[in-house]
Amino acid sequence: MVKIGIVGGTGYTGVELLRLLVRHSCVELTVITSRSEAGNRVADMYPNLRGYTDLCFTEPDEEALKQCDLVFFATPNGIAMKQAPALLAAGVKVIDLAADFRIQDLQIWQQWYGMEHACPELVPEAVYGLPELFREQIRDARLVANPGCYPTAVTLGFLPLLKTGVADLDALVADCKSGVSGAGRGANSAMLMAETGESFKAYAVAGHRHQPEISQNLARALGQDVSLTFVPHLLPMIRGIHATLYARTQDGVDLQALYEETYADEPFVDVMPPGSHPETRSVRGGNVCRIALHRPGDGDMVVVLSVIDNLVKGAAGQAVQNMNLMFGLDERQGLDLVGLLP
Amino acid sequence: MVKIGIVGGTGYTGVELLRLLVRHSCVELTVITSRSEAGNRVADMYPNLRGYTDLCFTEPDEEALKQCDLVFFATPNGIAMKQAPALLAAGVKVIDLAADFRIQDLQIWQQWYGMEHACPELVPEAVYGLPELFREQIRDARLVANPGCYPTAVTLGFLPLLKTGVADLDALVADCKSGVSGAGRGANSAMLMAETGESFKAYAVAGHRHQPEISQNLARALGQDVSLTFVPHLLPMIRGIHATLYARTQDGVDLQALYEETYADEPFVDVMPPGSHPETRSVRGGNVCRIALHRPGDGDMVVVLSVIDNLVKGAAGQAVQNMNLMFGLDERQGLDLVGLLP
Amino acid sequence: MVKIGIVGGTGYTGVELLRLLVRHSCVELTVITSRSEAGNRVADMYPNLRGYTDLCFTEPDEEALKQCDLVFFATPNGIAMKQAPALLAAGVKVIDLAADFRIQDLQIWQQWYGMEHACPELVPEAVYGLPELFREQIRDARLVANPGCYPTAVTLGFLPLLKTGVADLDALVADCKSGVSGAGRGANSAMLMAETGESFKAYAVAGHRHQPEISQNLARALGQDVSLTFVPHLLPMIRGIHATLYARTQDGVDLQALYEETYADEPFVDVMPPGSHPETRSVRGGNVCRIALHRPGDGDMVVVLSVIDNLVKGAAGQAVQNMNLMFGLDERQGLDLVGLLP
Amino acid sequence: MVKIGIVGGTGYTGVELLRLLVRHSCVELTVITSRSEAGNRVADMYPNLRGYTDLCFTEPDEEALKQCDLVFFATPNGIAMKQAPALLAAGVKVIDLAADFRIQDLQIWQQWYGMEHACPELVPEAVYGLPELFREQIRDARLVANPGCYPTAVTLGFLPLLKTGVADLDALVADCKSGVSGAGRGANSAMLMAETGESFKAYAVAGHRHQPEISQNLARALGQDVSLTFVPHLLPMIRGIHATLYARTQDGVDLQALYEETYADEPFVDVMPPGSHPETRSVRGGNVCRIALHRPGDGDMVVVLSVIDNLVKGAAGQAVQNMNLMFGLDERQGLDLVGLLP
Repeated sequence: MVKIGIVGGTGYTGVELLRLLVRHSCVELTVITSRSEAGNRVADMYPNLRGYTDLCFTEPDEEALKQCDLVFFATPNGIAMKQAPALLAAGVKVIDLAADFRIQDLQIWQQWYGMEHACPELVPEAVYGLPELFREQIRDARLVANPGCYPTAVTLGFLPLLKTGVADLDALVADCKSGVSGAGRGANSAMLMAETGESFKAYAVAGHRHQPEISQNLARALGQDVSLTFVPHLLPMIRGIHATLYARTQDGVDLQALYEETYADEPFVDVMPPGSHPETRSVRGGNVCRIALHRPGDGDMVVVLSVIDNLVKGAAGQAVQNMNLMFGLDERQGLDLVGLLP
Repeated sequence: MVKIGIVGGTGYTGVELLRLLVRHSCVELTVITSRSEAGNRVADMYPNLRGYTDLCFTEPDEEALKQCDLVFFATPNGIAMKQAPALLAAGVKVIDLAADFRIQDLQIWQQWYGMEHACPELVPEAVYGLPELFREQIRDARLVANPGCYPTAVTLGFLPLLKTGVADLDALVADCKSGVSGAGRGANSAMLMAETGESFKAYAVAGHRHQPEISQNLARALGQDVSLTFVPHLLPMIRGIHATLYARTQDGVDLQALYEETYADEPFVDVMPPGSHPETRSVRGGNVCRIALHRPGDGDMVVVLSVIDNLVKGAAGQAVQNMNLMFGLDERQGLDLVGLLP
Repeated sequence: MVKIGIVGGTGYTGVELLRLLVRHSCVELTVITSRSEAGNRVADMYPNLRGYTDLCFTEPDEEALKQCDLVFFATPNGIAMKQAPALLAAGVKVIDLAADFRIQDLQIWQQWYGMEHACPELVPEAVYGLPELFREQIRDARLVANPGCYPTAVTLGFLPLLKTGVADLDALVADCKSGVSGAGRGANSAMLMAETGESFKAYAVAGHRHQPEISQNLARALGQDVSLTFVPHLLPMIRGIHATLYARTQDGVDLQALYEETYADEPFVDVMPPGSHPETRSVRGGNVCRIALHRPGDGDMVVVLSVIDNLVKGAAGQAVQNMNLMFGLDERQGLDLVGLLP
Repeated sequence: MVKIGIVGGTGYTGVELLRLLVRHSCVELTVITSRSEAGNRVADMYPNLRGYTDLCFTEPDEEALKQCDLVFFATPNGIAMKQAPALLAAGVKVIDLAADFRIQDLQIWQQWYGMEHACPELVPEAVYGLPELFREQIRDARLVANPGCYPTAVTLGFLPLLKTGVADLDALVADCKSGVSGAGRGANSAMLMAETGESFKAYAVAGHRHQPEISQNLARALGQDVSLTFVPHLLPMIRGIHATLYARTQDGVDLQALYEETYADEPFVDVMPPGSHPETRSVRGGNVCRIALHRPGDGDMVVVLSVIDNLVKGAAGQAVQNMNLMFGLDERQGLDLVGLLP
């Protein structure tokens, strides 16, 4: 049994980790910390867990975390980079669900996240936890940077196409839409139901932190930079990301076959039949990324549709997938989740 | 392995049965019929099942169904009563998720369902599939009438209180609210999102088919008739039923203790701590009924709050629970489902 | 032109007042205060008002408010009671949309609102702004206490029935459901869309501030106390209140005729035909209360369905209606609003 | 008073026309036809209209329609083209809210709409009812083709930019999102709330009827063809369209100034300040198109955000605007509608 600690378990990635881990047959949840909720039962805060765990939140306690085999940081940005070094030194593996270790270029990181990095020396070692790109490295990693939600959907959707070498890398567009749970559980009047229900808008069009992360992923995979316009939008619903990706290509590559081959052995990427329109609800609560390809009017614009559940494949589910890899478990363990439809 | 057939698998109770059964380790899904979708893959219609089943819908085929150990009818009212007799005669067990066998008094049934009963002789044998009331009879049953969604939430919520004998049985009120999935997947302009979203209303206040079912349940359990006002309402959301139950009682019974004792050994009824307000999302996708008790102002009105997922404990989950009982499996098998929150 | 000031215009009752007043042909909006938004254009915060007003929020400024004919307080509880005396002394009329002047019994007020009243001497003078009950007093009032949202829907729904004298006043039930805008625009994680969407729950079952307000209304109208169980619930939608009211009566009064007569001359109460189920969307954005009556199974339980838009007839619309009365305008002026359906 | 008839008033564009026209001070509604609802009161079907009209639906009646000054067709495609000629011959003006007269190239029309055109001779005369493009022609028109919802948002959003001549016309992208009311009120299981709620998807990526309409608009205005990829998506909400438009341009034109100038005198186009993210709710129920411009990272991709209410500026509101022009009324008459926010 892998002994698990969770730092900052009161947010949505925290409760989603709990939903997955309480039913995972190879792990033992031993500690979950929260300053604000210390002493309270987890299931009092999240009644869906009643009957599944008696755990209480505790004050942050480095000694208790050091007894774990793995610690998940489900914290805001800037926490894991401070606490990970001591845990790693004690032989504990770490998965950070925030952004502290996602960006290899520290200058870019500091510019977008507005703080000094607390342990720059660990950044080169951190493995970017997208198994479809870095599976082998993840198996051997001590420190995994769990990907952002948008970057997961966009990277998986674009990669096979861009790797063909026939797409125009100068004018990629990722028009992305996310449910509100991506904004977290913090008190924020902009995310009230009365503000976000029955309405739709773009946000952060001038620039969003997930843009450099996506660009880094594509550049690393392609060996060259791309020019990507990324526009996020806020959906009046809770879970789900839909990425609509646009790229021009002169060439008549059989993209359907290409994508099917690329992802043939991937347990959590589903290339749908030609003509499909994946719905976010088909992956609600599941760890799958579903992808469909279109070429409207047989023209030179390719449209890729890519959907995930932002809290699962876009966060907690992918973290569990990474954990499985890091501990030599079946990659699918605990992730056998059928999407909740309707 | 229990060989399973499903008749009418294209509706919401059908897809929900599939969601549960494809991950149930003791069953084998062998046939699923649908006149309209015969020949099509189930996973094409319900992409959340992609990767979990390759089954295709088939034309109704009595011979194939007779090879099963158990057939679920996820059909409209009036179908099971025509097809069940032949299956039972062939030694196949039957669970009807519709209402054909729920009401013991045929006259009442015919009045509310507006048709002649096709096999009145089987009605007395049919066991009402609420395990909390009829567990032992379900174990031995050939034919189970799976309860309605409202009746499940209301019966479980009212019973311990009414069995005390101190509540006034003349003026019970069940003010119930349901998500739209209870109305099914049929084309119906009244259930469009543009009609039901961002709005709320009562319906069928003059009388609803679930009223005689609830009244029958309470009368059988109490040994006397009750007078119940049942008002259903339609919620602008998909899954979930919330029953708010009102009863007067002069007596100072410790209801919290009473409910906790009554349901102490029930795997799927959760009595919450005093002061709780159960949310439907805490049972979304799960097979649990959560109940909380209030006595506003310490007066003589007791308020019971009872929530279920109408498609799980209110339909497909309860049907699987009944199947487990009928085949001597662990009652919880395949129902280890944490509610999807948020 | 009536010169209008608004104190605290950044909340939902504030913006709703603005929506109504910018199109009201007899008023001139002269000042709108907000500590947090002082200096900002109202239309920058509420872009639906772009093109309708160039007004900016200002710091609270008693002198500017004293130049007005009428000041609306769209503030949290406890503000109007501090500022109203000086305005009234300066000859300015006041409508408080919060609760400071709604409850005549100060002890009850202080118990429910948890503060000392700052100007108890004005409470007896304050007129409760439900025109259907106190139209004549409102015409002459200097100080109007605009009713709460639930109390508006429940009082209008119950009154004609209870005034018959044949209903049992000992066991009234008001099962009420509200959209989330009733909770205001303050940052509150419990009201996030990710917390309130796709779910339903009761709240404050042990006791809610609107209960004593409703009880006071009924007692004043009937000349005797009633016993009312009031249970509020939170709907996964933005606007609208639906009150489902239950009362027993032995007598065969023709309630439909009674309600139609009672409200025949009321411009903003609509008694629907027998058998109706009013939807909240039919009053979305409008100032109407729609009511329908049922007697299920012709039994002795009467069910009254009453719907309003909590921000209009339940707040800002009713405040404008009161303003019209106080200044001798047509009561309907500026309230000619067709519900937005769908 | 302009005498108005409406053919097919039971759909959403019909009820929205009614919402606007019952409060329009210069019109008299004289006849509204519906085969299915003939004899029923309009307000029984749409209770938001109770108190505003006593009109009943009537059987289609050409003679009654011929007494009108103007007839709106709020019918499915293919109806107006059969009935308009007789009305025009009788001197009645016609506005078709469907697509019969929108496309000038009959071959394209027939290909996308799958039927033979019933009166090709009228197509050249029909004026495309986008006042921002064809105001003067509309004033003199007998027959107006009211634009589609997507074409309104996309055309208004793209035009000023494309007219600069510096944008790349070969790779335009219009990623559009619409609320479900755009699909109409017909019974259709795909549009049930249980199918469309809490989920998001693209549809018709291979090709959508509004694409040739948009292309025609742009080509007519620019005098040359453009290559546009148009991808529509379905939002889990009722009203609102959000178009996110992408175009490349090498040139450093001051687009903000350009758009502000272009639309300076337009009563129903609002160019928002730089950095804005228009929300669909800011135009809910209103006749405005709000537009904002972005140039992420000061690169060569321009992003235009354009929002409308699909039932108002995208249908009934624009039809009333056209009516005002055709009858010499103030273009804003009856369209003084503040968006319903929240």
